[in-house]
Amino acid sequence: MAERFHLPPGATYLKSHSVGCQPRAAETLLRDRLLTPWRETGEAWPHWLEAIDQWRAALAGLIGAEAQDLCPATNVSAGLSRYISALGTATTRRTILLAPSAFPTIGYVASGLAAAGWKTGYLPADADVRDPASWAAALDDDVALVVAMHVSSVSGALTDVAAVAAAAKTAGARCIADCAQSVGVVPVTPALWGVDAVLGTSVKWLCGGPGAAWLWVAPHDRSTLDPMERGWWSHENPFEMDIADFRYAPDARRWWGGTPDVAPFILSTAGIGEIAAIGVPAIRGHNAALQAMLRDALEARTPQWRWPSGAIGGTLCIDTGTDQPRVAAALERHNLRADFRGSILRVSFHAYNDAADAHAAAEALS
Amino acid sequence: MAERFHLPPGATYLKSHSVGCQPRAAETLLRDRLLTPWRETGEAWPHWLEAIDQWRAALAGLIGAEAQDLCPATNVSAGLSRYISALGTATTRRTILLAPSAFPTIGYVASGLAAAGWKTGYLPADADVRDPASWAAALDDDVALVVAMHVSSVSGALTDVAAVAAAAKTAGARCIADCAQSVGVVPVTPALWGVDAVLGTSVKWLCGGPGAAWLWVAPHDRSTLDPMERGWWSHENPFEMDIADFRYAPDARRWWGGTPDVAPFILSTAGIGEIAAIGVPAIRGHNAALQAMLRDALEARTPQWRWPSGAIGGTLCIDTGTDQPRVAAALERHNLRADFRGSILRVSFHAYNDAADAHAAAEALS
Repeated sequence: MAERFHLPPGATYLKSHSVGCQPRAAETLLRDRLLTPWRETGEAWPHWLEAIDQWRAALAGLIGAEAQDLCPATNVSAGLSRYISALGTATTRRTILLAPSAFPTIGYVASGLAAAGWKTGYLPADADVRDPASWAAALDDDVALVVAMHVSSVSGALTDVAAVAAAAKTAGARCIADCAQSVGVVPVTPALWGVDAVLGTSVKWLCGGPGAAWLWVAPHDRSTLDPMERGWWSHENPFEMDIADFRYAPDARRWWGGTPDVAPFILSTAGIGEIAAIGVPAIRGHNAALQAMLRDALEARTPQWRWPSGAIGGTLCIDTGTDQPRVAAALERHNLRADFRGSILRVSFHAYNDAADAHAAAEALS
Repeated sequence: MAERFHLPPGATYLKSHSVGCQPRAAETLLRDRLLTPWRETGEAWPHWLEAIDQWRAALAGLIGAEAQDLCPATNVSAGLSRYISALGTATTRRTILLAPSAFPTIGYVASGLAAAGWKTGYLPADADVRDPASWAAALDDDVALVVAMHVSSVSGALTDVAAVAAAAKTAGARCIADCAQSVGVVPVTPALWGVDAVLGTSVKWLCGGPGAAWLWVAPHDRSTLDPMERGWWSHENPFEMDIADFRYAPDARRWWGGTPDVAPFILSTAGIGEIAAIGVPAIRGHNAALQAMLRDALEARTPQWRWPSGAIGGTLCIDTGTDQPRVAAALERHNLRADFRGSILRVSFHAYNDAADAHAAAEALS
């Protein structure tokens, strides 16, 4: 895999839940699609827009979606905020339901809308986010939107998005899945889930760096939702330039907003290219094998730690309890790049990790 | 200037109102601050955040602002949308006032908020946007926000932002200035204007490419405005990770939102570096001299065209009327990169243009 990715020299990189390694193709793609047309032609925009279309097509291919249903977003927070901005006129319900273990920004975005009349509802702290019944029990008739984390950033829990979406639908609510911690290592298949929308990002498992997140909106809402947050690139024809005549684009571009951002989406295209070439099922299998290797080597010897149970995504989230300082020091000493949420150690194996990395981790942590 | 910027070979670039030429430093800076730390360290984020701080400091230096009052935004539309999202709780007024000649996205953003109770008010079509009395006459007691274009993208009109801000203040409204078409070629001095906020972008005269816009919020509103649109990087401490405890950052970071975008701000830093090194007053003087050269050579010979009168920014916006097709063909034939809004020809001279460019334009257009 060293021919596909830059692996940090002298270190074992186990933080693909954070950034992911840089594709070797990234620098060249950035030069070819961003810098060179800008330098050479004096007419960069047609090239830049084509580059965004190439990103959209690559991502659509990876997740089995139609390109027209994908919209660039700067980050998951912005994508969620924009999505919710369309719901006020689409429903009279005003509660956004999520789990307290959701990535904090989800709660910050939702609760930020209190002044606009939105309420944030949480599952009980002890509810199992993987059990659709937990969601069904919390779905009252004021819930407009369920925000489900496909994979939890703090526990690794893998949620059956289709089941949660079905529960939401039964209760008359929409469901959006946050796939920031899954896309690239766990199959993300919006069109098969019966979900209303999906958020994802290129930083982490897609190895594309920050700034290139995305919102997928289901075909059934292609032209029914009108985002209040918008800009000239949400217009059916951005170049019409009539300030008094805004018409939403008939597809996911309506979520786009202002002047397109380019560089992050070119970087992301390089990452998606590598992930697609290797194949997400292959990455998932490889990841599971390395997870098993680490568990086999270490779990029995660490009875004081809490290892994950049940379905998880690409990251092993291991609660090291009072051992945390010792474990952190060991990581540092062995140049292992992993991190913590509190006492929870997060270890991620990607396509570019191998058995030697799992052994190195087992040795360092034992 | 060819040592500072890549000038498109074989063409005369007169479209700095659109993109601007690429700084030669851009590729190296992108490698040094984005790609290399990502490849080499396995801990990219501290380097990336430092790069954003460097961008913020560079921009603050250029516009005489404090870095803490500057927040990154993806584009002007997103910055405006986010700014307005804080006003609903700060005032009971609900009208956003702008000129019909504002860049269309300003109107699209404002009118998109109708469902949230916002009204969009326009100056009369024949009002002079440069006359503060035009604004004063339209400022009724429902106006919460005046959006003034520092330089018009369609006429080039240069507005005295301080005078408009004073009129707004007298009427109990806030004022935000859109400096997308001025920053880099006309002095932009938020702290001296008495304005409440400023929007700008790196694409165009700052030669930084798309994706790196910004919102400056006046010190008097540093901690009084609470944007509804937010994310974990709007938090006083993004790494606190407590979904139930959001506290706004005590400065412009509160407008930031989700996971930071990096690449566009590094590119922008390269552009700001060149502009600052040359100096905006010098660029302004050079631009004015080349504008005068073109006018001297061409205006008297084109009585059928409408040339701008009064104060303008960096772009000559010349209404070519029914000559437009002929003029467009001439531009094409002479490899002059300029563009049109309808029949209005837009010609921009930047630091990297020279007398030969003005002569080439005069010759091609006569």
